[in-house]
Amino acid sequence: MPTTKIATVPPGSQDLVAGDVRRRRRVQHAWFDLAERGGYQEVIPPTFEYEEVFTRGAGPGLAARLIRFVDRDGRLVALRADFTSAIARLVGSRLAGAEMPLRLCYAGKVYRQEPEGGGRRRELFQLGAELIGDGGAEADVEVLRLAIRVLKALRIPDFQLNLGDIGFIRPLLAGLDPDGADALRVAIDRKDRAALADGARTLGAPAAVARALVELPELIGRGEVLNRARSLASSPDAEEAIERLKAIDGMLTAEEREHVVYDLGEIRGLGYYTGIQFEVFVAGVGRAVGFGGRYDGLLGLYGAERPAVGFALQTDDLAELLPEADA
Amino acid sequence: MPTTKIATVPPGSQDLVAGDVRRRRRVQHAWFDLAERGGYQEVIPPTFEYEEVFTRGAGPGLAARLIRFVDRDGRLVALRADFTSAIARLVGSRLAGAEMPLRLCYAGKVYRQEPEGGGRRRELFQLGAELIGDGGAEADVEVLRLAIRVLKALRIPDFQLNLGDIGFIRPLLAGLDPDGADALRVAIDRKDRAALADGARTLGAPAAVARALVELPELIGRGEVLNRARSLASSPDAEEAIERLKAIDGMLTAEEREHVVYDLGEIRGLGYYTGIQFEVFVAGVGRAVGFGGRYDGLLGLYGAERPAVGFALQTDDLAELLPEADA
Repeated sequence: MPTTKIATVPPGSQDLVAGDVRRRRRVQHAWFDLAERGGYQEVIPPTFEYEEVFTRGAGPGLAARLIRFVDRDGRLVALRADFTSAIARLVGSRLAGAEMPLRLCYAGKVYRQEPEGGGRRRELFQLGAELIGDGGAEADVEVLRLAIRVLKALRIPDFQLNLGDIGFIRPLLAGLDPDGADALRVAIDRKDRAALADGARTLGAPAAVARALVELPELIGRGEVLNRARSLASSPDAEEAIERLKAIDGMLTAEEREHVVYDLGEIRGLGYYTGIQFEVFVAGVGRAVGFGGRYDGLLGLYGAERPAVGFALQTDDLAELLPEADA
Repeated sequence: MPTTKIATVPPGSQDLVAGDVRRRRRVQHAWFDLAERGGYQEVIPPTFEYEEVFTRGAGPGLAARLIRFVDRDGRLVALRADFTSAIARLVGSRLAGAEMPLRLCYAGKVYRQEPEGGGRRRELFQLGAELIGDGGAEADVEVLRLAIRVLKALRIPDFQLNLGDIGFIRPLLAGLDPDGADALRVAIDRKDRAALADGARTLGAPAAVARALVELPELIGRGEVLNRARSLASSPDAEEAIERLKAIDGMLTAEEREHVVYDLGEIRGLGYYTGIQFEVFVAGVGRAVGFGGRYDGLLGLYGAERPAVGFALQTDDLAELLPEADA
């Protein structure tokens, strides 16, 4: 056997000792404490599953980043890329007969292929919850509240949920030719008002749609934004989305509302989310530390037609925000 | 996207919900509570590492059962097959400058390739500890005590540690031709007295060695066995091994001693362990639920020449022994 010094770990791996471990465990314990008190039961899906579990529900972006290998039976498997897909598979198989609504939670690693040298993690700790079988606004609020509570329990001082509803944007892109819709999506994502005005004109969007598109980048703010958005709603679906957000806003406490910013121009979850969608931002972290929303179409892909709403938080990012004294 | 019902999980996977999760978490919490109070710090090595991490220290049996794949950089990686190897790599790299002794603990999954259809798990939860940098009998006792304490904390009613020392057996096989030594190893493992007598005669073993070999299958029992073994010790190494076990026996409390059975004929860890070795048995489980011992030669293979003693327990087996009410 060689006795030369051994290599370190593969790029993007997490090799954790001391405070790095303690801080992650503290985040997980705070999470499970809260989730259990809310009636959420932990599930632990396998570390690797048949690849199709992750390609069915996830967009092509995630599918390209699976860490895959061939299993002994010759079938392609992938390391867990996403808890929500694994849980959808669970609900479509083992938990098919479970009583609804079903409240499930988790905390563990997900694995993503990343280009070498980019310094990005290929194993990430995440935590989250799924509320399955309840399509109502109360369920949306329950999940938003749980996300807010865990951030408060961790004493993260300055955080915000950017909340939108995909039902407001989707009608704006309906009926457009695919290339035009793609260009608009980019403009919406960049909050580029000029490009939106150009796009709406070029594509011959109806006046009401054009007006809403141009205003989208400005539809960010507290509850009053919902009134402005309501006046711009271009279809019954868009109206319904705004009414839903207003109902949610009405159910939040004043303290919770302080952490919610409405952002009707958030488009990243198009094709995945069917109702509310949100991203979680924390002061000092230059990217979202969490994301969630309603995906009433997802579970049907796994043989279980159920409404569902949930979220995931990046445990690593939260752990790094904890003071060492807390670890 | 297909909407047919999705397949289940790959063979040997653990897809855990409800009580199966709760029982495993209860075992892990009890473990970390105890380990932390004993000064053991948790480490979380990566889920997959360069294959050589696991092939260096492990015997060929484990090396053949690695779940391997080719990483993006073209190098072979393997899912963690064994925490001890990963920790040895850690101590040889990131923790190379750490103050000794080093007390490390862990709880998580290991992954093993198993033939399909055998129904054996390919992902197992384990927990354990390593005490690194202390070669003394007190360190052996500390680790034995920790194993006993976690089983007691879980209120496992009937358990036993079968404790031996590889230093007693190794001299009996020294200087024999390899084929002969192999046959003897099988006979020792089967506690086959007749085959041991035959083998000793055929191989022309010295009288003292032959006597010890034939008695090996009977060298099982409480402390008095150590006196019999002492009279059969065929070399200074064997004498030292028995003196070490006697010192350990003297340091155990009467309550701890109730759970210890000396078994000088235990040979499975030959080639890995260098001092004490033990297996943990629980009433109602037809195989060892844990194993441990001293491996002073292992860390040197990873560039860190340190004595070390540790153990691992099969979390799944312990979890299944907990009453549902405890979960």
